[in-house]
Amino acid sequence: MAQKVTPQSEDYSRWYTDVVQMAELADYSPVKGCMVIRPYGYALWENIQAGLDRRFKETGHQNAYFPLFIPQSFIQKEAEHVEGFAPELAVVTHGGGQELEEPLIVRPTSETIINTMMAKWIRSYRDLPMLLNQWCNVVRWEMRTRLFLRTTEFLWQEGHTAHATAEEAEEEARRMLDVYTDFAVNDAAIPVIPGRKSDSERFAGAVRSYTIEAMMGDRRALQAGTSHFLGQNFARAFGTQYLDQNNTLQYVWQTSWGVSTRMVGAVIMVHGDDHGLILPPLLAPIQVIVVPIWRNDAQKEAMLNAIAAFVPALDEVRLQVDDRDDVSPGFKFNDGEMRGVPLRVEIGPRDLAANQVTLARRDTGQKTPVPIADLAERVPEVLREIQSSMLRRATEFRDAHTYIVKDWGELEEAVAQGFARAWWCGSEECEARIKEDTKATTRCIPFDQAGTGKCVVCGAQAEEQAIFARAY
Amino acid sequence: MAQKVTPQSEDYSRWYTDVVQMAELADYSPVKGCMVIRPYGYALWENIQAGLDRRFKETGHQNAYFPLFIPQSFIQKEAEHVEGFAPELAVVTHGGGQELEEPLIVRPTSETIINTMMAKWIRSYRDLPMLLNQWCNVVRWEMRTRLFLRTTEFLWQEGHTAHATAEEAEEEARRMLDVYTDFAVNDAAIPVIPGRKSDSERFAGAVRSYTIEAMMGDRRALQAGTSHFLGQNFARAFGTQYLDQNNTLQYVWQTSWGVSTRMVGAVIMVHGDDHGLILPPLLAPIQVIVVPIWRNDAQKEAMLNAIAAFVPALDEVRLQVDDRDDVSPGFKFNDGEMRGVPLRVEIGPRDLAANQVTLARRDTGQKTPVPIADLAERVPEVLREIQSSMLRRATEFRDAHTYIVKDWGELEEAVAQGFARAWWCGSEECEARIKEDTKATTRCIPFDQAGTGKCVVCGAQAEEQAIFARAY
Repeated sequence: MAQKVTPQSEDYSRWYTDVVQMAELADYSPVKGCMVIRPYGYALWENIQAGLDRRFKETGHQNAYFPLFIPQSFIQKEAEHVEGFAPELAVVTHGGGQELEEPLIVRPTSETIINTMMAKWIRSYRDLPMLLNQWCNVVRWEMRTRLFLRTTEFLWQEGHTAHATAEEAEEEARRMLDVYTDFAVNDAAIPVIPGRKSDSERFAGAVRSYTIEAMMGDRRALQAGTSHFLGQNFARAFGTQYLDQNNTLQYVWQTSWGVSTRMVGAVIMVHGDDHGLILPPLLAPIQVIVVPIWRNDAQKEAMLNAIAAFVPALDEVRLQVDDRDDVSPGFKFNDGEMRGVPLRVEIGPRDLAANQVTLARRDTGQKTPVPIADLAERVPEVLREIQSSMLRRATEFRDAHTYIVKDWGELEEAVAQGFARAWWCGSEECEARIKEDTKATTRCIPFDQAGTGKCVVCGAQAEEQAIFARAY
Repeated sequence: MAQKVTPQSEDYSRWYTDVVQMAELADYSPVKGCMVIRPYGYALWENIQAGLDRRFKETGHQNAYFPLFIPQSFIQKEAEHVEGFAPELAVVTHGGGQELEEPLIVRPTSETIINTMMAKWIRSYRDLPMLLNQWCNVVRWEMRTRLFLRTTEFLWQEGHTAHATAEEAEEEARRMLDVYTDFAVNDAAIPVIPGRKSDSERFAGAVRSYTIEAMMGDRRALQAGTSHFLGQNFARAFGTQYLDQNNTLQYVWQTSWGVSTRMVGAVIMVHGDDHGLILPPLLAPIQVIVVPIWRNDAQKEAMLNAIAAFVPALDEVRLQVDDRDDVSPGFKFNDGEMRGVPLRVEIGPRDLAANQVTLARRDTGQKTPVPIADLAERVPEVLREIQSSMLRRATEFRDAHTYIVKDWGELEEAVAQGFARAWWCGSEECEARIKEDTKATTRCIPFDQAGTGKCVVCGAQAEEQAIFARAY
């Protein structure tokens, strides 16, 4: 913890890896492509899970659990799906000492296995909508891995729903994108752009894919969550049907949607600085760290007594007292900063004599003396201020690096600096040209649109603007 | 839900499978040996998780996450471990379209992969104890599977800790068995017998294994949780060492401990009856079901208004109002009983006129009229009564079918009826003889012991009694 992270300006990618390891969020494992999530990183993930899970339940979803293994033949039933996932699969060929008759795939996602069960459970319109979610691990073979951002095994939630009509399924896909947006903005303090994926970026097997896109500290884009309208593609492949009110057999309409441990990477890159993590209070495993500063045992005792007296009034706050004997206050300050603890309460002999403490904000560095008697009121207030100020700062940063571009020249310049918002005719040729020439991909076609314009590539009439950016 | 379960007296095993499926706890999947946990079963598991996780955190443990895949060579490093697990392994031989250089094992348990990380993280005595837990899925190939009780993939938590001394590790192993006992008794209303496993029943790689053993409704035993003192077996195999206060390199002392989705099976079999599940209030996804009984729309409206008026006062209770139009009150009663909802609140026109409801207990069938004004006080009280009465009933049942046996004849008779508690000299020969001749296994050597006696098999001097029973 005495180490220093590589400055962002020197090497952003090394800064990221340094922070992940020095803040003890995660570590490399001896298994190629697989990471270990350390306790501090897992506590952050648990807070992300809690914020999402509460929202899923409030919108009527129930958790369930489906098998890790999927028979190879299932994956092959939906044509686009198998094409998209085939290169990424891990295959179990032996079990219980014997070669298997049919190899089993370690799930890369669960549409196929869930459809085989929905086809069994769903009988009539009364069984719809069926609104399920699963928290689990999935495996997609990766050659070039990065902690949290791209790993062969990762943790996520995958929602899977079945509906009687296309409209209801479409509404659900959009509702869950709203849920993700709400979580990202209000809990993670990450401003996101919700929109539609272009066809080339669609999920393998979906009719339409939606996404929330966020800008990282190096101005590259990261897809922070996706939601898919699957139409009847999987329903037809698996025979997932219901009897409607007229006693006619119909295929269900489906959605799926997911957020993964990538979200941890987004939190790190949107908020962190050269001192380490900066965590939004709602997600921080430790919201407040109390650092007493003593010079002798008598001071220490008085200090710890004073702290013990005010801590109970802060029982709604995730608080930790750093009373370690073997490290200096300065070391503790750095340690708390590396771990991104939003608020530090410093208390020295002079503070104690004045019945006050100093509050130090991680996000702004601002220090304010506060009477001990006011702590129970002030600490939650300051945490709320930090939460909203972090969102404001991230939004300003993103907006300052988002450019509305009119022509090819501006586009090239913009994607070197951040996000380019440009008119696009919708053709795959123009999209491919942008990708080849600028390395920027179509992040999304934002929902908020107005007017028409000329395609930034071919000059043809364009109905929609898209966001182009280099991405993780 | 109109179906009836097979009576326990007719076929206990079919009763179990009927209840699991009709209460919609779980279902068979098309993947051999793997089950699907349905929303109601998963909600029960989430409550089990919450009860355990809280206790783990209160005793200083932190959650983390380690890879699903373990290189084959790791599993082979601890001799007993590989011997115990080799026949149960699932093997990934292909990834990303290529054959792997070294096959990967889908974790059957994580001692080996966690030791490779602990060996990296632990430097000195200051890093100890290291107290980790992981919630995850594991795979152990099974030929004959039973929902929740024995499946190829199952969900569990596995605790893994490292300590400076043998005494501390031993203390930890016992502490976690106490935690399991506390959870089983107080949350699951399952009386358990804590004790030591015999050497033949020890975990592959442990020095000593501890267990909590419960009696099911058919008087067979089920191991509901285990805790292991691993000594330095894995530490030596993986080089997990620390520098002690004298700057000398020492191997750490370790423990591991686990509870799985088997616990759901135990809850079903300890408490259920021929009407379905009976769930202890602390674990029940729905604690109270309100069933209004109306004959016409005017009554329905009055009824739902009255219910809407008292429900807010019960917001600490997991309550569901069954206001379905398309099924009868009788159907709703049966449905709630099948799902094991601890308490039903019935409200008919005459009740409403008298400003009262009828409380019906799932465990005893007892019905009591209660003024609506008293509900906020009475409902939580009755739930507590149900919780303690379920534990009392299960304890009486177990004690009534536990026999202290003096000789071989009594032993044979006892294990056909329930648990036999008998003096045992400790020899593997005597243990094997019991297993071969009676199909009963050594469930545990209970901690509470007094005196000495003669081995029930060979008549030699015996220092300890053991519990013998037929087991799941």
